[in-house]
Amino acid sequence: MSDERLTSALQRLDADGLISADPGIVRMLTGHSYDIETGPNVFALPAIVVASGSSAPVLVCSADEAQESANTIAYEGFTVGPIERVAGARRSVAEAVDRSGGNGIRWMVDGSSVPVGALPALSYSSPSVGVLAEMTAIKTIDEIDDIRAAIALCDAGQAAAREAALESASELDVWQHVRAAMESQAGGRIPVIADLVSGPRSAEVGGPPSTRSIGRGDLVLVDLVPRLAGVWGDSCSTFVDAEPTDEQRRAHLAARSALEAGLEMLRPGVRSADVDAAVRAVMGDDGWDYPHHTGHGLGFAWHEEPRIVASSETVLAPGMVVALEPGTYAENWGLRVEQIAVVTDSGPRVLSGHSLALERVSG
Amino acid sequence: MSDERLTSALQRLDADGLISADPGIVRMLTGHSYDIETGPNVFALPAIVVASGSSAPVLVCSADEAQESANTIAYEGFTVGPIERVAGARRSVAEAVDRSGGNGIRWMVDGSSVPVGALPALSYSSPSVGVLAEMTAIKTIDEIDDIRAAIALCDAGQAAAREAALESASELDVWQHVRAAMESQAGGRIPVIADLVSGPRSAEVGGPPSTRSIGRGDLVLVDLVPRLAGVWGDSCSTFVDAEPTDEQRRAHLAARSALEAGLEMLRPGVRSADVDAAVRAVMGDDGWDYPHHTGHGLGFAWHEEPRIVASSETVLAPGMVVALEPGTYAENWGLRVEQIAVVTDSGPRVLSGHSLALERVSG
Repeated sequence: MSDERLTSALQRLDADGLISADPGIVRMLTGHSYDIETGPNVFALPAIVVASGSSAPVLVCSADEAQESANTIAYEGFTVGPIERVAGARRSVAEAVDRSGGNGIRWMVDGSSVPVGALPALSYSSPSVGVLAEMTAIKTIDEIDDIRAAIALCDAGQAAAREAALESASELDVWQHVRAAMESQAGGRIPVIADLVSGPRSAEVGGPPSTRSIGRGDLVLVDLVPRLAGVWGDSCSTFVDAEPTDEQRRAHLAARSALEAGLEMLRPGVRSADVDAAVRAVMGDDGWDYPHHTGHGLGFAWHEEPRIVASSETVLAPGMVVALEPGTYAENWGLRVEQIAVVTDSGPRVLSGHSLALERVSG
Repeated sequence: MSDERLTSALQRLDADGLISADPGIVRMLTGHSYDIETGPNVFALPAIVVASGSSAPVLVCSADEAQESANTIAYEGFTVGPIERVAGARRSVAEAVDRSGGNGIRWMVDGSSVPVGALPALSYSSPSVGVLAEMTAIKTIDEIDDIRAAIALCDAGQAAAREAALESASELDVWQHVRAAMESQAGGRIPVIADLVSGPRSAEVGGPPSTRSIGRGDLVLVDLVPRLAGVWGDSCSTFVDAEPTDEQRRAHLAARSALEAGLEMLRPGVRSADVDAAVRAVMGDDGWDYPHHTGHGLGFAWHEEPRIVASSETVLAPGMVVALEPGTYAENWGLRVEQIAVVTDSGPRVLSGHSLALERVSG
């Protein structure tokens, strides 16, 4: 009845139920994904999941987004009358709590996401951040298929970037070409987080596309992070529409080698911190370095467990989806490459299909 | 020191201070606008304003988005170490509360927006929804200029829609053209809410662009709502790339007339409910009708006070920015027109510059 990942997290938290409005946790426990790209909805609060370990999770959302389901409690959304979204959400959460064990069980409330006004009178604790983050790390086969579809959008976007990023095109021109390709493949609008920087801007690790025109020999760094059906894809590539300099070639080779070394380590039982150290070591051989994480889990959020950082104690397990993205940033240029793989019992399976070539058009 | 609108709201609420994470309220009180289109930030909570009536509002946000300012308290954002955004935000809010009068003053917490975990131990009340909503209704001259700039993006987008919405183009093709025009004018990415529906889909009032191809004689309904520098614009137009039917002409004329009648009434002292009634009456003369509001305030949110609905007791005042959007929806087609005006002592001043013509290309 209940998601095994939830049951296990509740056990570790010494709790019986969880209330969260985190879009990833809502998606994992209910399948529901809600609009995120327009900011707060004037007529509704974010969708909320009320989940005890012993019954089916209950989704609380506005009537505008509710599907017919016994496990949804909806309150009024769009209205020409007075807007009562806070009271509506609170009443519905109270009903969901009653249905899921009531005030007699030990509740955890996800303080990062649940709005103060949505919470009925209830005694609860705040979950350990770590346990809650780890809950979403392992994906089911269906979820991995969904992530694969989001990554296929990245592949389309990366191909479009290489097509459009000609000398004197602006970063914004390239971006519009990229987004159009991704939305055409998706068949509709999708949220996309993106770095799209060229020339000296690539030294800044990332940033949104600007009106800057791509100059001769400029590196173009493209990092695309779309959300499709409530799950996220990710990808990065850096290329140049000219003969790369020797320095660029060496840095790019180091990043490719570091990425390969990291992917090789995405196996059950390996510590995240060790992946981080290994990838940094390969980059460091030539004196290259990056000021960000080596990688991160991906799917319910665009950065989640397993985080591939030195401080992580997480041990990789089958079903974890991991993005690795080593790079290096000099005074006036930078580059980064990124691929996504899923950890399986038989080794890493790469989900990314985009080109990592340093030349804009290879071959 | 403090915003007059805040002081007045606090007085009505019998309170001394307000804590809110509503993007519009944060923008109004601090000038800060935060990314909304990518959903929750894994490394940060939404920006929060802590404002007492007697000192300058304090902005609490992550270091990633903080500007140098004495009135900002920032906590760690992006990190390769453990992510502590909830504890960081809570500590910073506590510091902001201390700086703004501490636990000794009467606090209001905006329950629609402040995450449970961001709130330190504090005694507080929940504000009346109405008073909080009314606080943002009147705009300053600078804010109206900002809204004007956002509406200029609408104008560019509406013109692009008319250019691209040729027979057999898909709604998504048109959308991509529209968004590119708006982003090119803005010089960067911007959040845009949009209805873009054609043919029978226009009967559904709105909806996102789909892969549907525009057919001969189809109405195309385009409602564009971009956010620029933290404030929203709005606009709607409906057109056809063919000789309109008599029925379409009559409905469109009624909507144009209803819009004109409504705009004429946007004067200080007029009740919102009376504007609603007057616009509906003009539409109703011919038996046309719409299932949504007649209009709404605009700027800090895409739908705010003064709401132009039958249930509203709001009285219009100078500086209110109002969108009016009468329309009608038949069995397999619908249309709507929308313009924005600001209420001034010398009458309504229309801010919208897009074409409302029923023919795709007029003249």
